[in-house]
Amino acid sequence: MTAMNAEYIENVRFSSDGTSVIILDQTLLPHKTVFLELSEADELFEAISVLRVRGAPAIGIFAAFALYVIARKAADEHDDYDSFLAKVLGFSSYLCSARPTAVNLSRQLGRMETMARSLAGSPVSVTLEAMKSEALAIQREDVDMCRAISEYGLTLIRDGDGILTHCNAGPLATSKYGTGLGAILLAAERGMHLKVYCDETRPLLQGARLTVYELMKAGVDCTLICDNMASIVMHEGKIDAVFTGCDRVARNGDAANKIGTSGAAIIAKHYGVPFYIFCPSTTIDRACETGAEIVIEQRPPHEIASMFFEKPIAPEGAKCYNPAFDVTKADLITAIITEKGIFRAPYNF
Amino acid sequence: MTAMNAEYIENVRFSSDGTSVIILDQTLLPHKTVFLELSEADELFEAISVLRVRGAPAIGIFAAFALYVIARKAADEHDDYDSFLAKVLGFSSYLCSARPTAVNLSRQLGRMETMARSLAGSPVSVTLEAMKSEALAIQREDVDMCRAISEYGLTLIRDGDGILTHCNAGPLATSKYGTGLGAILLAAERGMHLKVYCDETRPLLQGARLTVYELMKAGVDCTLICDNMASIVMHEGKIDAVFTGCDRVARNGDAANKIGTSGAAIIAKHYGVPFYIFCPSTTIDRACETGAEIVIEQRPPHEIASMFFEKPIAPEGAKCYNPAFDVTKADLITAIITEKGIFRAPYNF
Repeated sequence: MTAMNAEYIENVRFSSDGTSVIILDQTLLPHKTVFLELSEADELFEAISVLRVRGAPAIGIFAAFALYVIARKAADEHDDYDSFLAKVLGFSSYLCSARPTAVNLSRQLGRMETMARSLAGSPVSVTLEAMKSEALAIQREDVDMCRAISEYGLTLIRDGDGILTHCNAGPLATSKYGTGLGAILLAAERGMHLKVYCDETRPLLQGARLTVYELMKAGVDCTLICDNMASIVMHEGKIDAVFTGCDRVARNGDAANKIGTSGAAIIAKHYGVPFYIFCPSTTIDRACETGAEIVIEQRPPHEIASMFFEKPIAPEGAKCYNPAFDVTKADLITAIITEKGIFRAPYNF
Repeated sequence: MTAMNAEYIENVRFSSDGTSVIILDQTLLPHKTVFLELSEADELFEAISVLRVRGAPAIGIFAAFALYVIARKAADEHDDYDSFLAKVLGFSSYLCSARPTAVNLSRQLGRMETMARSLAGSPVSVTLEAMKSEALAIQREDVDMCRAISEYGLTLIRDGDGILTHCNAGPLATSKYGTGLGAILLAAERGMHLKVYCDETRPLLQGARLTVYELMKAGVDCTLICDNMASIVMHEGKIDAVFTGCDRVARNGDAANKIGTSGAAIIAKHYGVPFYIFCPSTTIDRACETGAEIVIEQRPPHEIASMFFEKPIAPEGAKCYNPAFDVTKADLITAIITEKGIFRAPYNF
């Protein structure tokens, strides 16, 4: 086995002088690879709100970086700590409103705020350094967590295996490796040759646009299929395991993820193909007894009725049903993999 | 129950003077309802080759109508029967090459040719009348067959039921009613109120573009979903039965149909939802022992990689796998319904 020269995408980083955040604009993928250098409050906000940076972990990392950049400006403008802190906290709550449902956004901003508050009385320059370290720590911890998930995931596959993916849970959505895609990218680093089939993932096509992009960049053999082809590729023996990320896991192991996940799990069970879910342990919601308690977000009909909100597909006025997620029952999930290990049914988190 | 004023689309008919065929141009659906009047050999050929008329039964009917229109011109130009017949047969083989794989096309043209040959010696005017009658008989027989299939199908559902459809097997592909959609349209005629969920059917979106169009025209309550939402709508109890058409049935009941059918059948079995396949009895291929013998057509990658062959979705150079059909195993099919009745497993055709 020869190690591949995998090319990773650094989706969030500081400029060399630390005065701005550089991000890969995900709205232009896969056709344009454009990096944006952001330093103004409104453009940092807009990057989250219009999904130039997306994926809960990546949003949290970006927000911490953004808060440091604004704090640095505030330090230039304000001599006293109170004015500096007020500016920092004001921007933090503004940024937090860019996508109010992403829990990582508020969690990581909260962590940065706590740091800034705890250093009241220190010179502003000390706080700035500490904030920069904290932002980098948040990113590094995400890399470590994704790597730990991926290492566990790697024990589940063998060289030459065929893997089916659904939606996108790769480095673009996190820092490096990703969750559902992490073991696949780590396998490529180690010189394994997997054959990955990627569900395109209607309606927003994250599989076609992002997962295929990430795997091609990393030199992984990947093939795009429509969601409704999962059955034929399993029937043909092309798939040894299904790997997906996850948005929320209930105590009993029921897992909410991108729409279509439960169908893929049912089909996998039918063909005897193991079905694995990868997520940080923070995704497990012990306050949620079963998947029945998870409310499914309903999204607007035009996501289905029109392709990319532009060209209409369906007749005008056609009714559409567009749930963004579904719940996969615990008995369909072979294992749930977090940075803490591999958990198998019966689940009791 | 009040009978609905269902509006049917007459997709193939003669002009009032019989000198041309009028078709609904299916390439412009669902956004434009344009009827074309065709009488020239090359435009009749083109209508089949570019799928202005599509669906095996509809193509067969159209070809019979087209042959009559050309025969009528030939009668004006040629006094002797041999010259007339040569012209008719020449056009017939030309038309037959428009889509060489559609068995109905060659079958119905063959029937018309036999008619024209058998009347050699009669006045051309007599042959012309007989050909027109034969073309109308082919259409009428298709209507009768679809109605018979639909009547059997109607016994499988109750007022208020939720039905999931995949791809398009409606009147546009046949004459009236259709096969998979027939019972639903007949139910609407009888004043039943079904709630139909239509898989959009990637990659070519026949469900979104054609099935939803036909059901809306007929006043049927229908809702468009992405293929990967079949599991959630069944989980939510919205579906009482799945109805699809079929391209080929093996002796043992294995059935080849549009890609995604087998996945829908596996998911239906998981949720205990009956899965029904509707087709003319001629679709049953007794020379084919099991579905394993059925060769699956592979279609070009750009159907997946680009939306409508225009806007790219996937990264440039992405590998795609694009099987057009899949085989649903007989043990997943609750019943196969033809004009001859309802057949249940174990199948032994």
